[in-house]
Amino acid sequence: MAVSCPEATNLVTSSDTESPAEQQQQQDQSLDTFSFAPVRLQRLPHLTDYLPDLQTLRNPLDSNHFFHPTDGFYVSPGDVILRQIVYDLSGMFPPPAPHLAYHRAGPRERVFFEPSGVRAAIVTCGGLCPGLNTVIRELVVGLWELYDVREIYGIPAGYRGFYSREPVKLSPKMVHGWHKRGGTALETSRGGFDLEKIVNAIEEKGFNQVYIIGGDGTMKGAVKIFGEIRRRKLKIAVVGIPKTVDNDIGIIDRSFGFQTAVEMAQQAINAAHVEAESAVNGIGLVKLMGRSTGHIALHATLSNRDVDCCLIPEVEFFLEGEGGLLEFLDRRLKENGHAVLVVAEGAGQDLIPRTAAQKEERDESGNPVFLDVGGWLKSELKKWWDRDHPNELFTVKYIDPTYMIRAVPANATDNLYCTLLAHSAIHGVMAGYTGFVCGPINGNYAYIPLDEVAKAKHQVNTRDHKWAWVRSVTNQPDFLRI
Amino acid sequence: MAVSCPEATNLVTSSDTESPAEQQQQQDQSLDTFSFAPVRLQRLPHLTDYLPDLQTLRNPLDSNHFFHPTDGFYVSPGDVILRQIVYDLSGMFPPPAPHLAYHRAGPRERVFFEPSGVRAAIVTCGGLCPGLNTVIRELVVGLWELYDVREIYGIPAGYRGFYSREPVKLSPKMVHGWHKRGGTALETSRGGFDLEKIVNAIEEKGFNQVYIIGGDGTMKGAVKIFGEIRRRKLKIAVVGIPKTVDNDIGIIDRSFGFQTAVEMAQQAINAAHVEAESAVNGIGLVKLMGRSTGHIALHATLSNRDVDCCLIPEVEFFLEGEGGLLEFLDRRLKENGHAVLVVAEGAGQDLIPRTAAQKEERDESGNPVFLDVGGWLKSELKKWWDRDHPNELFTVKYIDPTYMIRAVPANATDNLYCTLLAHSAIHGVMAGYTGFVCGPINGNYAYIPLDEVAKAKHQVNTRDHKWAWVRSVTNQPDFLRI
Amino acid sequence: MAVSCPEATNLVTSSDTESPAEQQQQQDQSLDTFSFAPVRLQRLPHLTDYLPDLQTLRNPLDSNHFFHPTDGFYVSPGDVILRQIVYDLSGMFPPPAPHLAYHRAGPRERVFFEPSGVRAAIVTCGGLCPGLNTVIRELVVGLWELYDVREIYGIPAGYRGFYSREPVKLSPKMVHGWHKRGGTALETSRGGFDLEKIVNAIEEKGFNQVYIIGGDGTMKGAVKIFGEIRRRKLKIAVVGIPKTVDNDIGIIDRSFGFQTAVEMAQQAINAAHVEAESAVNGIGLVKLMGRSTGHIALHATLSNRDVDCCLIPEVEFFLEGEGGLLEFLDRRLKENGHAVLVVAEGAGQDLIPRTAAQKEERDESGNPVFLDVGGWLKSELKKWWDRDHPNELFTVKYIDPTYMIRAVPANATDNLYCTLLAHSAIHGVMAGYTGFVCGPINGNYAYIPLDEVAKAKHQVNTRDHKWAWVRSVTNQPDFLRI
Amino acid sequence: MAVSCPEATNLVTSSDTESPAEQQQQQDQSLDTFSFAPVRLQRLPHLTDYLPDLQTLRNPLDSNHFFHPTDGFYVSPGDVILRQIVYDLSGMFPPPAPHLAYHRAGPRERVFFEPSGVRAAIVTCGGLCPGLNTVIRELVVGLWELYDVREIYGIPAGYRGFYSREPVKLSPKMVHGWHKRGGTALETSRGGFDLEKIVNAIEEKGFNQVYIIGGDGTMKGAVKIFGEIRRRKLKIAVVGIPKTVDNDIGIIDRSFGFQTAVEMAQQAINAAHVEAESAVNGIGLVKLMGRSTGHIALHATLSNRDVDCCLIPEVEFFLEGEGGLLEFLDRRLKENGHAVLVVAEGAGQDLIPRTAAQKEERDESGNPVFLDVGGWLKSELKKWWDRDHPNELFTVKYIDPTYMIRAVPANATDNLYCTLLAHSAIHGVMAGYTGFVCGPINGNYAYIPLDEVAKAKHQVNTRDHKWAWVRSVTNQPDFLRI
Repeated sequence: MAVSCPEATNLVTSSDTESPAEQQQQQDQSLDTFSFAPVRLQRLPHLTDYLPDLQTLRNPLDSNHFFHPTDGFYVSPGDVILRQIVYDLSGMFPPPAPHLAYHRAGPRERVFFEPSGVRAAIVTCGGLCPGLNTVIRELVVGLWELYDVREIYGIPAGYRGFYSREPVKLSPKMVHGWHKRGGTALETSRGGFDLEKIVNAIEEKGFNQVYIIGGDGTMKGAVKIFGEIRRRKLKIAVVGIPKTVDNDIGIIDRSFGFQTAVEMAQQAINAAHVEAESAVNGIGLVKLMGRSTGHIALHATLSNRDVDCCLIPEVEFFLEGEGGLLEFLDRRLKENGHAVLVVAEGAGQDLIPRTAAQKEERDESGNPVFLDVGGWLKSELKKWWDRDHPNELFTVKYIDPTYMIRAVPANATDNLYCTLLAHSAIHGVMAGYTGFVCGPINGNYAYIPLDEVAKAKHQVNTRDHKWAWVRSVTNQPDFLRI
Repeated sequence: MAVSCPEATNLVTSSDTESPAEQQQQQDQSLDTFSFAPVRLQRLPHLTDYLPDLQTLRNPLDSNHFFHPTDGFYVSPGDVILRQIVYDLSGMFPPPAPHLAYHRAGPRERVFFEPSGVRAAIVTCGGLCPGLNTVIRELVVGLWELYDVREIYGIPAGYRGFYSREPVKLSPKMVHGWHKRGGTALETSRGGFDLEKIVNAIEEKGFNQVYIIGGDGTMKGAVKIFGEIRRRKLKIAVVGIPKTVDNDIGIIDRSFGFQTAVEMAQQAINAAHVEAESAVNGIGLVKLMGRSTGHIALHATLSNRDVDCCLIPEVEFFLEGEGGLLEFLDRRLKENGHAVLVVAEGAGQDLIPRTAAQKEERDESGNPVFLDVGGWLKSELKKWWDRDHPNELFTVKYIDPTYMIRAVPANATDNLYCTLLAHSAIHGVMAGYTGFVCGPINGNYAYIPLDEVAKAKHQVNTRDHKWAWVRSVTNQPDFLRI
Repeated sequence: MAVSCPEATNLVTSSDTESPAEQQQQQDQSLDTFSFAPVRLQRLPHLTDYLPDLQTLRNPLDSNHFFHPTDGFYVSPGDVILRQIVYDLSGMFPPPAPHLAYHRAGPRERVFFEPSGVRAAIVTCGGLCPGLNTVIRELVVGLWELYDVREIYGIPAGYRGFYSREPVKLSPKMVHGWHKRGGTALETSRGGFDLEKIVNAIEEKGFNQVYIIGGDGTMKGAVKIFGEIRRRKLKIAVVGIPKTVDNDIGIIDRSFGFQTAVEMAQQAINAAHVEAESAVNGIGLVKLMGRSTGHIALHATLSNRDVDCCLIPEVEFFLEGEGGLLEFLDRRLKENGHAVLVVAEGAGQDLIPRTAAQKEERDESGNPVFLDVGGWLKSELKKWWDRDHPNELFTVKYIDPTYMIRAVPANATDNLYCTLLAHSAIHGVMAGYTGFVCGPINGNYAYIPLDEVAKAKHQVNTRDHKWAWVRSVTNQPDFLRI
Repeated sequence: MAVSCPEATNLVTSSDTESPAEQQQQQDQSLDTFSFAPVRLQRLPHLTDYLPDLQTLRNPLDSNHFFHPTDGFYVSPGDVILRQIVYDLSGMFPPPAPHLAYHRAGPRERVFFEPSGVRAAIVTCGGLCPGLNTVIRELVVGLWELYDVREIYGIPAGYRGFYSREPVKLSPKMVHGWHKRGGTALETSRGGFDLEKIVNAIEEKGFNQVYIIGGDGTMKGAVKIFGEIRRRKLKIAVVGIPKTVDNDIGIIDRSFGFQTAVEMAQQAINAAHVEAESAVNGIGLVKLMGRSTGHIALHATLSNRDVDCCLIPEVEFFLEGEGGLLEFLDRRLKENGHAVLVVAEGAGQDLIPRTAAQKEERDESGNPVFLDVGGWLKSELKKWWDRDHPNELFTVKYIDPTYMIRAVPANATDNLYCTLLAHSAIHGVMAGYTGFVCGPINGNYAYIPLDEVAKAKHQVNTRDHKWAWVRSVTNQPDFLRI
């Protein structure tokens, strides 16, 4: 899927002087073989960066009877994954800036932790996301089965749990069916980040592997924890597992739970469609998750073909006037008798009147409070209709399926993804890497520096074909004021 | 997901003479930047190869009000996707053979068909697969909405329909809700391939774009159709859309419907698990699709954690003796009271006694007839138990969910995939490419020569980590005779 | 199921003077056989009441090749169903007032409509309910297949559609897959009842069978339409098909769509439970349909065992103080860390502060506007926690699944019910009955006078065992001020 | 629903001499009030029958704070439910034989067990059925919460578990989420009935309440256990909870799990329909549970409208010749291109050729072995087509969803039913009743003598309207040889 489709920045330089066939053939020939600009390998923090004398040992997988480490089984430090894999050859002369490559995830020949000495901590922060319990389960099962680790703890209630709650000892038996349960069995919370207290607690409780599952705020915290641990020169590896149902994290192909969320969103859109088409001048309005990005709304719209308009944060829209939403809806109702509107929660935040208090308010993660674009739209639509069509029937049914979507268990695709993610994280930590994140790049699991992921954003590219497809699917306006 | 994970052919060359930290750092530094061997662009057949004087015109998307073709909107002949994106840098000196790159899918600036002159034919061949109707629907809607094509026909009943049935005219209105229906609204069949009759019919009926959806047998037929059309120097573009629920096709990341099939397989495995654990010495046995490859069985096993053993065509197994299946099941029943067995339909074909007739038999696509490994296993298990545990309770419940899996509508992930696939095919055909297939390579849609895809196979790599994970998940034996 | 469980009004008169065994035996013997008070048959309006000279003819089912009307096939005017079937024999002397019996639904030997002369109109009014489309479909298919009626029309948009919209001609082919679609393909609306206009339109358009599907407001309108038709002495039969997802209609066992709604409500409660247990001091709050009755909330709570408190209109509750909701929740959070609250939309309407405007407001069916008890509770819970536990974490997740519940297609149980309901209605109308409703009484389909149903209410009996079970399941307080 | 619809044995005695209107009115008037024949109360075994001096005590619910036993709360020995509630008044003179009434289920004022002295045993026998785990869970939770019983045991592996396995102690915590799991957590098996060993074990282990969940074979065993216990004059109450997914048990309205099975069957029928309509001359064949009765097949067919023919044990059919199945299918394929066939597993057993061995074979419950009617039909259909249409395409897809249906958790309707069933059983046992079954009669829970239920059969009444509806829905032949 083109989810990871890089921006198309190529300049087409075809001339019109030759016949297209000649042109085609010439280009094809000239492109028969070509050479790349150099590639730069993204460096990954390692415990030996600040603890150069660490002992290593052969990977215990050598003697695990499920594995038969033959040549090529272990991933070497030279195993890399290219980030950019789409090129416009016509634009390559002079060659562009060096391309990036990342270390490939997987077991290393030598590890920096004696299994019996590992004390692992797992924490989940922020909102729910399908697959959270699978990641926890697989960290536990993976550490236990692959590396014979026996000291594995869950930190309850998010970051604050490090210093305010007792860790919960976990075992494969205990986490047995968790991958079929929604939510997080460890409990989660927002905020509660206190760097000193957290690192002190990690040190006091003797944890030397810390698995942090959370969104971009959580990843920023993880960067700080990693920095403080490095400052204290502790032999503690920190790995982040990016969790964002919105799929708004950069570099990696997609985040876990996202496919499940898109699947579940179908149900809400179908209901909105049924409500709309069963009414006279019926509008079905569905608000989907997506604070800074509209990926869920976009994918849900493209998977389901009953949506007439999809509003996302990346595209400004307006209500009144030519080319506005109301004009469009007016036309759809006339043509079709009903309309379905999907809106990402972060869309239109600039349009909604904000009280002075709302302008100041912040949520527990420090993000600006989002106003309910769904409720606002519903009320604006009613006002508009009463004003412009005072004696005609009209119905808006507003569905907010957020909690029904994010509380479900991961589907099969996401369950498998979470499994590979967890196992990748374990292999990296055992190999001594720290301050990193793991995730798929172009379909292959890679290790990426934590701070790079914490800063990266993944927005809908409104200039590529997918957005154009949304528009051709929905026939919606482009909201460009002329 | 590591589905597309290329084979790990790297040789690890780490020496043990330096401290690991030094070694690590040195390698990291030496790898800071590096250069590639040259890349070879895979050439794509084009109508102008044998019709050099074809007229071209500006892409009609220029004036489609949903698109605003800015710089970079159109894909140029120089837009390529790298196939190999995982490298072992340590093995790169001397550089390996040239890497392959493929043309990126997407709209071209110039097209070789006048929309009003297009007569498109769509045909589905072979067995059912979730998403078939979505592909058909999107070909119709895409041709109609994007390029204003109005002459779009469905060929009923597979290849034989070209010469034995009347084409069915299709329109967006007619295919409206098809993406929510399983099966193929065009009907399908196996066999019926008669090259002369088919190409004659295509010519007589005036089709100039032929969209062929089917499995590897069908793609081999498409190669021949393309060859004959080229021989006759007809201005008819042929594109293949690979359909295989088994995901056994090479080069592309995965085939449509596969994710849906893995999802649906969960239901059967859950039922088998319930049956097994509700009985005394209960075995739940599930046969899943996969004639030459075990991808569905593998993914279903990894997504669901109740499977004790997963048998696939890529791994030989045996019943009796040390390290055999029966010994393993005996132990699982003792330990756990029940066991769940997943078997791909192509597994164990060499073990099942075959009558003389069965040795000769071929199905309508010319493939050797597969014997029912599920039924055979069920009966072998009963015989074994009666022999070795004559007075103990024992139950085998055998579930074959094949038709319940392949008849469902595509899930959201596959629906989106099918949409992008269909639209990619249309853009390629309009641009004059022919004898090609479209599909995702490393997450980006590409055009691939038909004959290359028809020959490529995608088997489960039993030497990579995923298979090891299956074994660590299931604890199953490796079936290596010692 | 005890859904239809009549009120337990029996007085137990056991004396304590004898041994229980003797007492038991004596009572049993004395009850060996007993006789009833007389039964009164509920009279049903019939076209011949005011058109005594109507011609009749043999039922055309006689010659329908799917039926073989043998003795007993046709229902006679003497076929009745007892309404009261639970008796306390100890309280029967002197015998109580006469019991009621109703005419049994089914085909009659003689009919009062010539099939070729029938013009049937079908209308749906009010909100959506699973099964609406099945009822419409089965009316069409039933009239067509059973009685060879060919003139069948849908009235779009509810009552107002009679005089403001063109009827839509319906046929089996057109309604083919409707039973698998949610909503109503005829569109619906509230209000729009104008007796004169409606009856004039019925007369002008020549309809002689009118099938009205709707809730209690709609049934009251149907009573008036029937009255006006009788006044005008028109040969037009009027039948009501009671539709209320809330199951608040009396006399009949349950209304269609109710079982589907209870099933779908599970999903919302499960999500609320996951959200609650994944948070620190998490409360999951689900609002379910039920304006005047709490049947959906009650059944959903009893089917799902994760609910800690179920609030329904039939039981007053209060927030503050001993025995109040807040005290209960405080205790549950302490004991269990989370709580799930289910509230019927009509619960607590007296507790919610109402503005002057809200006191006046009426919806389009003339019902008082219901305030959002869910939103109110959510905000009250937050205020309470901030006040009483200012520095502790707390989360309320509020889910309103109303539109996602009522828009789904009927499940198998409701689909079958809707089929039998529609066919029963057709048989009754063909037999000349009018001004009636059909529905199941004690598991058997009966005909009931329209006005009786329009007045009947079905509330949760909070004195019977089912409510006690809710309380024992949830441990919730009884909200009795001491 | 008319599931419990009694046989229509009424004789219609209308004369044709008067005008229909007069006739109608006369009859209506003559029926205004009427009197019944006497009713006979079905006597229920009670511990005091053979232990006349048993002590009783006030029901502990008196002091359970969830209940407020007011007047009418307790069910008295005079509380009865009428079995026959549909009458043909015209046939009532002379009055028919006495009608039956049954004791109503519910808590009694006095109980015969001291809670602290109760040792309850729960056993599940025979095949799986949705809701089994719910019944077990609710017996545990009900005994614990309602009556403060603390000694509750599960007997593993069916009847044989009494004497060959250790009982498993159960508590509410342990059974917490069981109602959301399919199968039976206690394990089940067929056969193993050894009266002496079982009653000895019950006596030795000190059980005084035995809850037996199983089908008709199991109920026959329960009758014997009850008889032996009575012979030994033991204070042990025996209650049966009838379990048959086929719904073939008499007297009670329907058995638990049945609605869930009908729901799940939809999925298989839909798949068969998709397979059939996607092929040329495609037949979808679904085998559904139902050895001696076709209720699941019938209800599934009526709920889903894509079935062309429904074969059940109650209706003989034949393949060849006029009015036969093959002729019918030939016509459907010609008209429609495809056909869907639903067959109950017990249908056509007389048609399938049986080997000598198969004639003798019995399953573990002693029932004659059923031959696979689905496999046989599939092969007969292929033979027929090859013979009659040698050169035409043809496909039969055979789906046997049995284990996927019976292994699912109960849906909401069945979950609620199982809850009420379990609680009813508990109340009856506590009140000293024994040798009884509980189940709904005309929608109200009743107690019924075990031996009466063990003998009762519930077959599809092929003379009532529901079967006629199947035929009008499917257009299938009536298989009457002319």
